[in-house]
Amino acid sequence: MVFAVVDDGRALLSSRVADTLLGAKESWTRRMFEQAAQLRRDGGGPVHDLSLGNPSLEPPARWIRALHELLDDPAPGMHRYMTNAGFPEVREFIARREGERFGLPVLCGQVTMTVGAAGGLNVVMRSMLDPDDEVVVPTPYFSEYDHYCANASARLRPVPFGPGFGLDVEAIAARLGERTRLVLVNSPNNPSGAIYPAEQLDRLAETLTRANAGRERPIFVVEDSPYRDLTHDGAAVPSMMERYPHTIHITSHSKDLGLAGERIGYVVLSPRAAGTELLARAFAFCNRVLGFVNAPALMQRALPRVLGHADGRVDVEVYASRCRRMASGLAELGFDVPPPRAGFFLFPGLPARLRDEDGGDVALTERLLAERTIVVPGVAFRVPGHLRLSMAADDDAVDGALAAFRRVCA
Amino acid sequence: MVFAVVDDGRALLSSRVADTLLGAKESWTRRMFEQAAQLRRDGGGPVHDLSLGNPSLEPPARWIRALHELLDDPAPGMHRYMTNAGFPEVREFIARREGERFGLPVLCGQVTMTVGAAGGLNVVMRSMLDPDDEVVVPTPYFSEYDHYCANASARLRPVPFGPGFGLDVEAIAARLGERTRLVLVNSPNNPSGAIYPAEQLDRLAETLTRANAGRERPIFVVEDSPYRDLTHDGAAVPSMMERYPHTIHITSHSKDLGLAGERIGYVVLSPRAAGTELLARAFAFCNRVLGFVNAPALMQRALPRVLGHADGRVDVEVYASRCRRMASGLAELGFDVPPPRAGFFLFPGLPARLRDEDGGDVALTERLLAERTIVVPGVAFRVPGHLRLSMAADDDAVDGALAAFRRVCA
Repeated sequence: MVFAVVDDGRALLSSRVADTLLGAKESWTRRMFEQAAQLRRDGGGPVHDLSLGNPSLEPPARWIRALHELLDDPAPGMHRYMTNAGFPEVREFIARREGERFGLPVLCGQVTMTVGAAGGLNVVMRSMLDPDDEVVVPTPYFSEYDHYCANASARLRPVPFGPGFGLDVEAIAARLGERTRLVLVNSPNNPSGAIYPAEQLDRLAETLTRANAGRERPIFVVEDSPYRDLTHDGAAVPSMMERYPHTIHITSHSKDLGLAGERIGYVVLSPRAAGTELLARAFAFCNRVLGFVNAPALMQRALPRVLGHADGRVDVEVYASRCRRMASGLAELGFDVPPPRAGFFLFPGLPARLRDEDGGDVALTERLLAERTIVVPGVAFRVPGHLRLSMAADDDAVDGALAAFRRVCA
Repeated sequence: MVFAVVDDGRALLSSRVADTLLGAKESWTRRMFEQAAQLRRDGGGPVHDLSLGNPSLEPPARWIRALHELLDDPAPGMHRYMTNAGFPEVREFIARREGERFGLPVLCGQVTMTVGAAGGLNVVMRSMLDPDDEVVVPTPYFSEYDHYCANASARLRPVPFGPGFGLDVEAIAARLGERTRLVLVNSPNNPSGAIYPAEQLDRLAETLTRANAGRERPIFVVEDSPYRDLTHDGAAVPSMMERYPHTIHITSHSKDLGLAGERIGYVVLSPRAAGTELLARAFAFCNRVLGFVNAPALMQRALPRVLGHADGRVDVEVYASRCRRMASGLAELGFDVPPPRAGFFLFPGLPARLRDEDGGDVALTERLLAERTIVVPGVAFRVPGHLRLSMAADDDAVDGALAAFRRVCA
């Protein structure tokens, strides 16, 4: 008996995974990644890959030093299991720091150390969502949210954005239903680079407070904020933590410390939220049973030695200046390029003549591909007519891509 | 409006998490952990905690050195995202090593680096299981399997063990049904310390091969083997990889390198399994969307510098000698103590007079608790009449616990 080929192999996989991997709707990022890999295999010169948000800046020297020090003078049991929520002394440190940031008395017990923000989002969703519960999310949004929601068998409900890729609070209000459990807010935003202004967050808080009247349990805000310490002008990022009690803030140091592969982040519960103690227990439980168990031990320990120090962060100006260079090049070609306020993504709108062409962003993505340049079309983020360009690529890729844009748009 | 207490808070949680956290069936390990914490808070002398499998031996000096070297001479992008399955050069190394171990031509593409074995198990189950699919598992078994299965909405089907905590292959055969997708085998076993003998694995392979006749897809064996390099007498551990094509081997270095908190493990697909290419893609996809994204980067890089070296492992004799000391003490008290072949758990059977008492292992667990000694009752592993004792505790805890046993059994 030989099973080596079982039709297309679909029967070997869970239906949902098979539908995603073998279906028509495979993710754009994956598709572009595979096409880039094919281009590289084929040879024929460099590939200008602007598809991935993989931080090109290396972690700061201070972080490297912190690891050396920890390894030279280890606390007993430093690499063992700890409480699933993380080392108490690290959580104390994070609680104090986040408390100062938000002006809230955050306690150690309200911090859960996680395997990056992706781990944190999955922990929170698994803890709080029943099948068919709804998560409202403003577009454009990070396409992985679709999968995280699906992991909890919940439904993602996208809403349109407002001017300047801000929040359309009325659109959010209209989308709230009986099954709405969470509103997922990503600021600074991937892909748009927008920071949701304080005034819009105030209105969101009012809207949710009104919507909570008569509900058995409040709608929670989950705020995903891994770019909060990569603002281009050093501005503070307004947060729902400061204005709505039922808020869960999630972040990671993948980007500001340049160590996306090391998987360190955390979930911070507002001390003003309903049921903080039980929610924190649920987060620790899900951290454990989802298989994370705990955030990597050494990375936890390094944070108190690095965060808050002037040399404890990558130099965001490198990303910001690449963004400016690419933005001005694209503007000359007729693109509408909202200047990103944080992070390393550009989300330019196509010139009218390209947008109106059949296919719009998808067609342009394919024409760029023929020029060995990899971008992600706006449809991947539910906003057609745009492209997402990662300036976390190196300078050569940025220059090569800009030249390709010039040829394609000529 | 104040939501600070919503009944018992149940409404804030997903039903499944609420059922587990607030229900009667909360895990024994958790219950014992909380009672130990309470004892510690109350003061009154040391607590002899034998409940957790948290390796007390620190990682070998060679591993510490490897991390220093990597940090001193970093490859560019070493801490960034890599392919979700892990660094190709690390997977090449693991593939070669696992190939030699099993006598199989394992390829890089058949290795997925994971966030420990717990991450690997969740990735495999999510990749392969539909709701209500069945996973057959011999008792006694690690109680987290219940949760991992539940994460995929699948059903765990426990089967009785054979003599010496071996496999009862006939019992497994009788449990195979139309919805059986996986047989989950944990050898060396937690909690029993048994290694399933080659002859039993041979018969399991024959049984599954027969059961596959007429099926659309083969039943897969998932072999969870984190104790394979902690055998007390240096014996090799027979594997299903060597005898059944549709095998997925999962391990971690939590125990043999003593770094459970650092979360490094991997999934190895037999090159003879059905659909390896598609399964490997599914594993990488699930690694990503479940929120692991990838195994911690630095820990991946360290493995090729440590594994296979004489000084690249903890000294298992420390655990083995503690096991012998506790076993001989318990034997004097009338316990039946099968000598563990690997790892750091003892799983003694109660003397008849204690077993027959009302409550058996649970009653004894509670009497030990009154003596400030924390163990896990056999019911937690579906085998009443036994206790699980972790010899990963320090020597003082072992001595204190033995004294408590003497008082309780006097």
